Amino acid sequence: MISKSLQKQIHSLELKKFRKESGLFVAEGGKTVIDILNSDIECCKIIATEEWLSENQIKQDIPVLTASEEELQRISFLRTPQGVLGLFRQRESNIDNEIPKRELCIALDDVQDPGNLGTIIRIADWFGIEHVFCSMNTADIYNPKTVQATMGAICRVKVHYIDLPNYLKSLKGEVPIYGTFLNGENIYKKELKQKGIIVMGNEGNGIGKRCKECVDEHLFIPNYPTDRETSESLNVSTATAIICAEFRRRAI
Amino acid sequence: MISKSLQKQIHSLELKKFRKESGLFVAEGGKTVIDILNSDIECCKIIATEEWLSENQIKQDIPVLTASEEELQRISFLRTPQGVLGLFRQRESNIDNEIPKRELCIALDDVQDPGNLGTIIRIADWFGIEHVFCSMNTADIYNPKTVQATMGAICRVKVHYIDLPNYLKSLKGEVPIYGTFLNGENIYKKELKQKGIIVMGNEGNGIGKRCKECVDEHLFIPNYPTDRETSESLNVSTATAIICAEFRRRAI
Repeated sequence: MISKSLQKQIHSLELKKFRKESGLFVAEGGKTVIDILNSDIECCKIIATEEWLSENQIKQDIPVLTASEEELQRISFLRTPQGVLGLFRQRESNIDNEIPKRELCIALDDVQDPGNLGTIIRIADWFGIEHVFCSMNTADIYNPKTVQATMGAICRVKVHYIDLPNYLKSLKGEVPIYGTFLNGENIYKKELKQKGIIVMGNEGNGIGKRCKECVDEHLFIPNYPTDRETSESLNVSTATAIICAEFRRRAI
Repeated sequence: MISKSLQKQIHSLELKKFRKESGLFVAEGGKTVIDILNSDIECCKIIATEEWLSENQIKQDIPVLTASEEELQRISFLRTPQGVLGLFRQRESNIDNEIPKRELCIALDDVQDPGNLGTIIRIADWFGIEHVFCSMNTADIYNPKTVQATMGAICRVKVHYIDLPNYLKSLKGEVPIYGTFLNGENIYKKELKQKGIIVMGNEGNGIGKRCKECVDEHLFIPNYPTDRETSESLNVSTATAIICAEFRRRAI
């Protein structure tokens, strides 16, 4: 039985304001919930159907609430709820300037679309990029749509919100800072290091002026053939995928 | 002034059934509409605000209807209409077995998500892939969401709906047929030709059994580092991007 107040609390977590106030977020879908339960993210509550609970083992110290499918339907953010919804505590972010000196990271300058952000986190996970630094205006990783789109990658990739232009400024000269630009240089002809930061920009406007000033290496994904009329650009998650793949191709 | 019957007709085009019956589709947004007007796709009607029409030159033989922003709001599929909506005639599809012998093509086996399909068309356009063959259960290219997601690439990339397993069967041995599989071989160690077909599969289930039987070359995008726990897979449009980029990298 789900109380009115719990139902209200869960619905409120669709909004960033209430996620921020409470420090909580919602994840749905069997695989995503199980992945998060097996991670270092703290679980506050699992709400699931009897059927789901009979098929999945949950640790004893986690509060579990059994709900009917109709009740799940009422609290779910999905059109078709998948038998389970989890209430989790947001990770605390520990940022230091050493991370990009040790390993390859991604920075997102005002990426707006929650689905794009989720897809980028999934790409980062595939390519072993464990830290993503986001400007304050980038979509919220704890948006239910974004959590869903990460397909569990949220467990393994740490997402930090930060004053991005100033962070990049503090790293300039210390680590290579890469960015993608339509007038950049052919990525296949550039030296790519396995540490530093790859900056990706907003869907409509690309990388903003203040971040751009910190970028050392301007990359471009060549279209083919170069003299054919084509789309103006690639989607930001598409471009991130191609760039990360190319960095890692050099390492293997 | 938009008549009730025109409003009804446009709304009906959200559904595949009515798009199929009428052979029409809707496109919105200044850049997309202008791109389509400059292509070989036939325009049946342009509905736009006075402001938009004063800033854009439309050929004299195209029927134009002036509408207020409120009227556009009522017929638009977008949350924020962009001053113009176009009613266009769907292209006829001319399929022959020679196309994949001449050039590199993509085939989609039951890709379900309209956004994914649109993104894939945009990727195809960037990499000069002009023909995409879709199984009958793949999302409809003329879905308003898909048209939007192509960002104008729909003008340059031809999308064909076809009995895909039988089409691939008819090509087997004639052209190389590539596919992506989680147990495939490292794409960076494979020979890749600049003609033939790249088959991409359904979001949940990958390439179906009947299409799989026709695939000669099983490709895999290596994760990094290979011994790190990671996401189960990449999104289909992400994988398409990385694969197309790698094919074309070899050509330039």
